[in-house]
Amino acid sequence: MAKLAFLGLGNMGLAMAANLLKAGHTLTVYNRTAAKAAPLQAQGATVAATPAEAARGAEAVFTMVSDDAVLTELVTGPEGLLHGLAPNAVHISCSTVAPTTTTRLAEAHAAHGSEFVAAPVFGKPDAAASAKLWLGLAGPPAARAKVQPWLAPLGQGVHEFGDDPAAASVVKLCGNFMLGAAIEAMAEAFTLAEKSGVGRQPIYDFLVNTIFDCPVYHGYGRMIASKNYTPVGALPPIIRKDFRLVLDHAQQLATPMPLAQLVHNRMSTTVARGEDDVDWTAFARRVSEDAGLEA
Amino acid sequence: MAKLAFLGLGNMGLAMAANLLKAGHTLTVYNRTAAKAAPLQAQGATVAATPAEAARGAEAVFTMVSDDAVLTELVTGPEGLLHGLAPNAVHISCSTVAPTTTTRLAEAHAAHGSEFVAAPVFGKPDAAASAKLWLGLAGPPAARAKVQPWLAPLGQGVHEFGDDPAAASVVKLCGNFMLGAAIEAMAEAFTLAEKSGVGRQPIYDFLVNTIFDCPVYHGYGRMIASKNYTPVGALPPIIRKDFRLVLDHAQQLATPMPLAQLVHNRMSTTVARGEDDVDWTAFARRVSEDAGLEA
Amino acid sequence: MAKLAFLGLGNMGLAMAANLLKAGHTLTVYNRTAAKAAPLQAQGATVAATPAEAARGAEAVFTMVSDDAVLTELVTGPEGLLHGLAPNAVHISCSTVAPTTTTRLAEAHAAHGSEFVAAPVFGKPDAAASAKLWLGLAGPPAARAKVQPWLAPLGQGVHEFGDDPAAASVVKLCGNFMLGAAIEAMAEAFTLAEKSGVGRQPIYDFLVNTIFDCPVYHGYGRMIASKNYTPVGALPPIIRKDFRLVLDHAQQLATPMPLAQLVHNRMSTTVARGEDDVDWTAFARRVSEDAGLEA
Amino acid sequence: MAKLAFLGLGNMGLAMAANLLKAGHTLTVYNRTAAKAAPLQAQGATVAATPAEAARGAEAVFTMVSDDAVLTELVTGPEGLLHGLAPNAVHISCSTVAPTTTTRLAEAHAAHGSEFVAAPVFGKPDAAASAKLWLGLAGPPAARAKVQPWLAPLGQGVHEFGDDPAAASVVKLCGNFMLGAAIEAMAEAFTLAEKSGVGRQPIYDFLVNTIFDCPVYHGYGRMIASKNYTPVGALPPIIRKDFRLVLDHAQQLATPMPLAQLVHNRMSTTVARGEDDVDWTAFARRVSEDAGLEA
Repeated sequence: MAKLAFLGLGNMGLAMAANLLKAGHTLTVYNRTAAKAAPLQAQGATVAATPAEAARGAEAVFTMVSDDAVLTELVTGPEGLLHGLAPNAVHISCSTVAPTTTTRLAEAHAAHGSEFVAAPVFGKPDAAASAKLWLGLAGPPAARAKVQPWLAPLGQGVHEFGDDPAAASVVKLCGNFMLGAAIEAMAEAFTLAEKSGVGRQPIYDFLVNTIFDCPVYHGYGRMIASKNYTPVGALPPIIRKDFRLVLDHAQQLATPMPLAQLVHNRMSTTVARGEDDVDWTAFARRVSEDAGLEA
Repeated sequence: MAKLAFLGLGNMGLAMAANLLKAGHTLTVYNRTAAKAAPLQAQGATVAATPAEAARGAEAVFTMVSDDAVLTELVTGPEGLLHGLAPNAVHISCSTVAPTTTTRLAEAHAAHGSEFVAAPVFGKPDAAASAKLWLGLAGPPAARAKVQPWLAPLGQGVHEFGDDPAAASVVKLCGNFMLGAAIEAMAEAFTLAEKSGVGRQPIYDFLVNTIFDCPVYHGYGRMIASKNYTPVGALPPIIRKDFRLVLDHAQQLATPMPLAQLVHNRMSTTVARGEDDVDWTAFARRVSEDAGLEA
Repeated sequence: MAKLAFLGLGNMGLAMAANLLKAGHTLTVYNRTAAKAAPLQAQGATVAATPAEAARGAEAVFTMVSDDAVLTELVTGPEGLLHGLAPNAVHISCSTVAPTTTTRLAEAHAAHGSEFVAAPVFGKPDAAASAKLWLGLAGPPAARAKVQPWLAPLGQGVHEFGDDPAAASVVKLCGNFMLGAAIEAMAEAFTLAEKSGVGRQPIYDFLVNTIFDCPVYHGYGRMIASKNYTPVGALPPIIRKDFRLVLDHAQQLATPMPLAQLVHNRMSTTVARGEDDVDWTAFARRVSEDAGLEA
Repeated sequence: MAKLAFLGLGNMGLAMAANLLKAGHTLTVYNRTAAKAAPLQAQGATVAATPAEAARGAEAVFTMVSDDAVLTELVTGPEGLLHGLAPNAVHISCSTVAPTTTTRLAEAHAAHGSEFVAAPVFGKPDAAASAKLWLGLAGPPAARAKVQPWLAPLGQGVHEFGDDPAAASVVKLCGNFMLGAAIEAMAEAFTLAEKSGVGRQPIYDFLVNTIFDCPVYHGYGRMIASKNYTPVGALPPIIRKDFRLVLDHAQQLATPMPLAQLVHNRMSTTVARGEDDVDWTAFARRVSEDAGLEA
C-alpha cells in the first residue's frame, strides 16, 4: 500500500478518493472548501491545509478539479503541490484540461525534477462511486508503469496513449465531444419523431436496444426521451468549458469541427439563459425549441 | 409455411429472400434485372416476369428497393403488384422511403382492399445474410399480427410502432440519420487526434471498447480509423437519398436538423466528386480534407 | 400600346399591374379572390372570371403568384391561361418558383405553340409601387425582345440571362438567398455588439453608411437594429418557401449551401412558432434568443 | 501641425503614415524590419530604433500591427512605447485586436498616466493609400477630441463609439465578420449559378449593380466571380486570426455565431492547405470544391 494524496474533492474527486481509501492506501486530501473533506476524514483520510502540505511525503498526488486555471494554481501557485512534492514522486492529473495546459504542467514538473502523467477519466459520478470509470493514461513509460496499480481501484480499465501527457488530454476532449454529438443526434431524431407523431419514447426504446445499444445512448437518451434532465451529472457551464477547449485546440491545429461548434453553440445558449439546475444534456431543449416545441 | 413473394433483389433483398426460403416458405421472386434472381431460383424460388405475376396467389409480398419512385412503380405501375395481389393479402414494405410515400401506398392498398405494413430493416448486407437485422413494423394491428411470423426469419427482433405505417418510415430515417451523425462525430474526433499526434487507431480502440462499445461504433469506426472505406455496405448516392428524405420530412414539419444537414452536405460533396467505389462512410474524408489532410 | 393581362393580384401584383395601366396599356386582370381586383377596375382594367378568359386576346400575360403549385394550376389547369392564350402571345412569368417549374412551363408553352419568358422581380411592394423593381429576364431571344417594352414600366432596369427561362429563376433564388445571408450576418453582428455594450443602433449606423452602404443593408438593417420587424414586406412562410426552393435546387445539383441551410432553419423556427405578423426579417430574433436575449 | 509617431509599417501602416506626412505633420516611424521605413524616410520621416524612442516627444503615437501579441509587446515590452510616451500624450491604436487586449492596454496607459484611444480602420491598402479609409474611434472624450484632426488625413470619415476603447475593437471585429459573411454568401450563390449553367459573371454583374450595389460586393464579388483571388489585400492567416478573435469574444459573451464559425472553418481549411499567395477571399474556393468543382 502506498502513501497518496488527492486534491480536488468535487463529486468526482470525492468518489475516486474514497476508492483509494477502500483499496487500503494511506491518503491525505485537500480541497479549497475544506468541509467537503469531512466524509473522507471519517473514512481515515488526513486533511491537509494546502496543496503543498498534502503533497509532502506522498508517492503520488492525484488532482481532479474543474478547470485549467484552478489546476495550474494547485500545482504551481504559491502554496502549490510542487512546493511539497518529492523529486521522485509523481503527479497524476485527472482533470479535463487543454492539451497545452498539460504540456505546461509537464514542463513545470520536469524543471522541478518530479514526474507527471495525465490520467483523465470517463464516467459520471455514479460510475466513479462504483469504480466503473474508464481511464486514459499518458506520460513517461516509467511513470506510467508506476501509477498503474494506483489507478486500478478507480475504474474498469486503463488505456495508455504514449509518452506525451498531452495525448491523454486530447483523447479526453475528443470523448466528451463525442458524447455531445450523440446527444445532439438523439435530440434531432427524437424531436423529428415527436413532431411526426411517433413519440420520443418509442424511438428511444428501439434504437438503444438495437443498433445503439451502449451505455452512452441508454443513459443520455433516457433524459432526452423523457425531457427530464436530472440527476445532474455535470452542469452546463462545466461541459461548455470542455467544448471550448476542444475548439481552441482544433483552432490551433486548423481543424474545422462543425459538429463540435454546433454543440458548443447549444451549450452557450443554455448557459446564456441561466439553466443551471439541469444536467448538461439539457442542451437538447434547444433542438425542441427550434422546432417550435417547449418555447 | 406460407406462399410469399419478394420483389427487389439487391444485396439486401437477395439475402432476406434467401432466409425466407431457408425458413421453408414457398417463394416467388421478381427483379427488374432478372439475372439477379438466379441464385434464389437455384434454392427453389419461382421467378416471375412482373410484379403483378409475383403477387398473384401470394399471402404476403415483400418489397425491398432503392427509392421511392421505384417502389411506387412496383406497386401502382401498369404491371404493379396491386394488379396481382389478392384482397386479403398483405404488402410488407421494407424499403427506406419517405413517410409520405408510405402513406400514399397505404391509401392505394386501402382503395384496392388489400393490407399494407411498413417493415424497414436496420443492418448491412452481412447482417441480412446472417439474419441479424433489426426490424421496425407499423400498420393496422391485424396485419401486424399476421406478418410477424414471416418477419421472424429475417432478423433478431421486430419492434412495433403502432397503426400508422408512416411511423416505421420515420423511425428508419431517424436511425440512418443517427448512423451518419456517429460517423461525422468519429471523423471529427479522429481527425483532431491525428493532427494532435495521438493517431486515429489508438483513439478508436479506446472509445469503441469503453463508452461507445456498440456495433455501430465498432463497424463504422474501423473504416474511419483505417481510412479504408470498404467493403461497400451502401453506396454514397443511396444514403444521400436517405438524408434528403430526412430533410424533406423535417422541412415539412418545420423541424431544423442542422446535424442532418451537415452530413447531407458531406455526402453531396462525395457524390459531386464521383466517389462511387466506396462505402458511404467515406464522407469522413471530407473532414480530413477540411483539416488539410488527404487533399 | 398593347393588350395585356395580369394574373395574381397580391401586394406585388397589384402594384405592378397598376404601373402597366399607368403606362397606357389595355389590361385584363384575374385573381382568385376577385375582390382584390377592385382598385384596378377603378383604374380602367377589365376583370376576367378565369385565367383562360383573361388570356384570351392578350399579346402578353403576366403572372405573379405565391408558389409553384398555384402558378402551375394558373397555367395548365382546367381553366388555365393556356386555354385562352393565342399561339403567338407570350406568357411573362414573374413569380419566384423552382427552376424545374419554369422548365416545365416552358415545355407546356412549346407544346401549345405559345411563347414563354421568366421575368422575376427584385424589390418590396413599395418598390413595385414606385416602379423601382429590378427585373431578370430569360427565354428565347425573340420573346425577350418583344417583352422588353412591357417590362419597362415596372422597374428601373431589366437584366437578361440568356435563352433558358430557368436561368432567371436561378438568379431570383440566389438573390433572395443573399438577402437572407445579409440579414443573418447583421443579426449576429448586432447581437454581439449588443452583448458587448456597444449597442445595435451605433454599429448599424456606422456600417450601413460606410462599407455596407447599399439599400439592402439600410432597409433590413434598420429592422434588425431596432428589433421592429414591420412593415411586413413578405411573411415568413413565403420566404421560407423560397429557401426551400434554393435548397431543393442545390440538392439536385449536389451543391452544399450551409449558409442557405442556416437561414432556412431560422425561418423554420419562425414559422414553427407561428410568428405570422412580422416581416420575414424577424428570423433575426432567433440569433438574439440563442444569445439569451428576448427569450 | 503636430509631432507624431507611427509604429508598424506593413501595407496599411506605410500608406497611413505617408498620409500623415502629406498632411504636414512631423513624423517619427518605427518598424521591426527597419528597411520598410525607407520610403517614409525619403519623404521626411525620422526613423527610430525602438518603439520607446519613437514615442519620445510625440504628441500622439499611432500603432498598426498584425496581432495582439505584437501590439502588446510594442506598448508594454522592455523597449515599448510606454517607456517613451509623455504623460499627456496619446496612443492611437489602429490594429484589429481583441476587445480584451484593448482593455488591457487602456489599463496600462491609465497606470502610466498617458491617454489611449482605439481607432481601427476599414479598407484595403489601396483605400489607405488614397485616404479612403473609414475609421471607428472610442476612448475618453477629451482624447477623442484631441485625436480627431490627426485621424482626418487618413480616411473619409470617423465614427465615434463612446468612452470605452474596447467598443471600437468590437465594431472592427463585427465589420470584418460581415465582410466574410458577404463573401460566403456570394460564393454559395455564384457556385449554384455556375452549376445551374447561369455562370458566375452574369449573376455577379446583375446583383452588384442592383440590390447589392456597394463597394464590398463589387470588390470581393469580382474576385469570386472570376476565381482570381488577387491582388492580395490581406493574407488568409491574418483574417483567420480576426475571425478567431470574433469567436473568442462571442464565446466569452455566450453568443452563438454560426455564420462566423462557418467562415472561420473555411479559412482554417485555406490555411491548413497552405494557400498563402492569395487574398483571404480565396476561401470561396472551399464552396466550389464542396460542390465538386476545382477539386
